[in-house]
Formats: sequence, structure tokens, C-alpha cells
Amino acid sequence: MAEDSCVIYPIGQVEKREGQTRLRVFSKYAPGLLGLGGFSHVHVFWWFGENDTPRKRETLQVHPRGDKENPLTGVFATRAPVRPNLIATTLCRIRGIDGEVIRIDAIEAFDGTPILDLKPYIPAADRPQGDVRVPQWVAGRCGRM
Amino acid sequence: MAEDSCVIYPIGQVEKREGQTRLRVFSKYAPGLLGLGGFSHVHVFWWFGENDTPRKRETLQVHPRGDKENPLTGVFATRAPVRPNLIATTLCRIRGIDGEVIRIDAIEAFDGTPILDLKPYIPAADRPQGDVRVPQWVAGRCGRM
Repeated sequence: MAEDSCVIYPIGQVEKREGQTRLRVFSKYAPGLLGLGGFSHVHVFWWFGENDTPRKRETLQVHPRGDKENPLTGVFATRAPVRPNLIATTLCRIRGIDGEVIRIDAIEAFDGTPILDLKPYIPAADRPQGDVRVPQWVAGRCGRM
Repeated sequence: MAEDSCVIYPIGQVEKREGQTRLRVFSKYAPGLLGLGGFSHVHVFWWFGENDTPRKRETLQVHPRGDKENPLTGVFATRAPVRPNLIATTLCRIRGIDGEVIRIDAIEAFDGTPILDLKPYIPAADRPQGDVRVPQWVAGRCGRM
């Protein structure tokens, strides 16, 4: 099983129009939004579709943030948009929900980007237990740890 | 594009043996782990393979945590293991890395569960901005918010 592939069907898409950023869920999936308005934040799972090429999916090491001064690092130790499976996540503050549309402030995805899943921010699951440690290339950037 | 499907190839699997919990990355992906040891925590993306049936993928509303006293809620407002795309995430503390194997304390996935991706915990990306709000069914459980 573990070597088989899994198939993902986008459940919506990012919309960036007229200075607004929205997440539009396709109508068939809209019942899945019931109750999301009770949360302040949502994890948005999206697909780095721009990078869905065999070469980019075979990339296993990068200089983080495209900066050659950062040490060569495995993609599983970065949030780089090249990786074997092009899943991205962004934690977004929910500004409002209008039917099938979630208004957010910003997301670093293009207009039309496929959305794969939405999960609410739940502190008990999402806050790390114990001390947090990051390497120098992360910690060294003021305010970007 | 947005209505097309995306294909995911597992990059490893969960191992639960002899009281130990480990994440084993397949050899071809092992270079992707370089530098992960500098982080204390990793987001593990895995596949709810047990639920990969058409009926479970069509489930859009549930009573969270299987408790009928919790209000009927859209799956995108829960962490339920039934949803259109069966992506799960667990934030794990890294206990150590030995070659292709990451030792962790626990994960609510079965032995042999496919791992889809690993991303380091980076506070600037993973800490919510502003106040956090959750609905009553989450907040009402002492210590489980």
C-alpha cells in the first residue's frame, strides 16, 4: 500500500480579485463549511501547481528561501515550494464567510490555485509541546523565526 | 486546472513496533531530511488510508469526535478522519533522527500508514496572528481547546 499513489481532488480555489483575497469552495463541498465561522483561523491546504513537473518533484535539497547563504537543506526541513508532493499549508485568519466564500487577508498562492483541504486551528493540536528549537538559518532572521 | 486531480506518492511510512514510534522515509527520499535535526518539531502529513472509500470521501458533515452531543459540523470545521481528501497532519516532537528514521513519541496513525510530506515547525508561519477563537464544542472540553 505505502508505495501506491493517493489521489486528491481540489475542493475549491484561491481567488485574488480587486484587492480581495478569498477562498471559494466548490458548491458540492459547501456543506463542509458548516460551523467554520466559529473559528478565528483556518489551515488552508493548497497545491503548488506551478511546480508540478517531474524535475521539481525530484528536488530534495535547496538553499532555503532561495538564499545561497543559507545551508543546503533537505526539502523536508524547509517549507520550500519544490518537494515530492506539492502540498502547501498556510494558516489564515478568517475575516468572514459568505456562503461558499471565505474572506482572508492574504495567502502566498496565485489566483486560481487549487485548494485541497481546510482544517480549523485548534490549539490543543497545533501548539507545540515543550521547547521549540529551529536552526540558525531560521532563527537568525529577526522576527522570522 | 482546479477541477483536475493531483497525485501524491507516499515518501515513507509510520512504524509502530516494540513500543517505539518511528517515521521511516523511503531511501530515495532520504536526502530530503538533511537539516531536519535542527528543528524540535515536525508537521507529519499522512493519509487516512483506512477511510479511502467513496462513501467516506463524500462525507461532508459529522458530529465532532464521534459525540452526538457535539453539533453537526462541516468536515472543514473539524479534524475528522473522513473528508474529501484524506490528508491528516500531526505536529510531532522530534526525539532523534537515525539515517532514514525519525523517532517520535506518538502519532494517532496505524503502523504502515503512508507519510505524504514532512514540514518543520517554524513559529513565524505556524503561530496564529491575533486572538484565537474556537466554538463551544472545542472550548468546552477542559484542556482540549
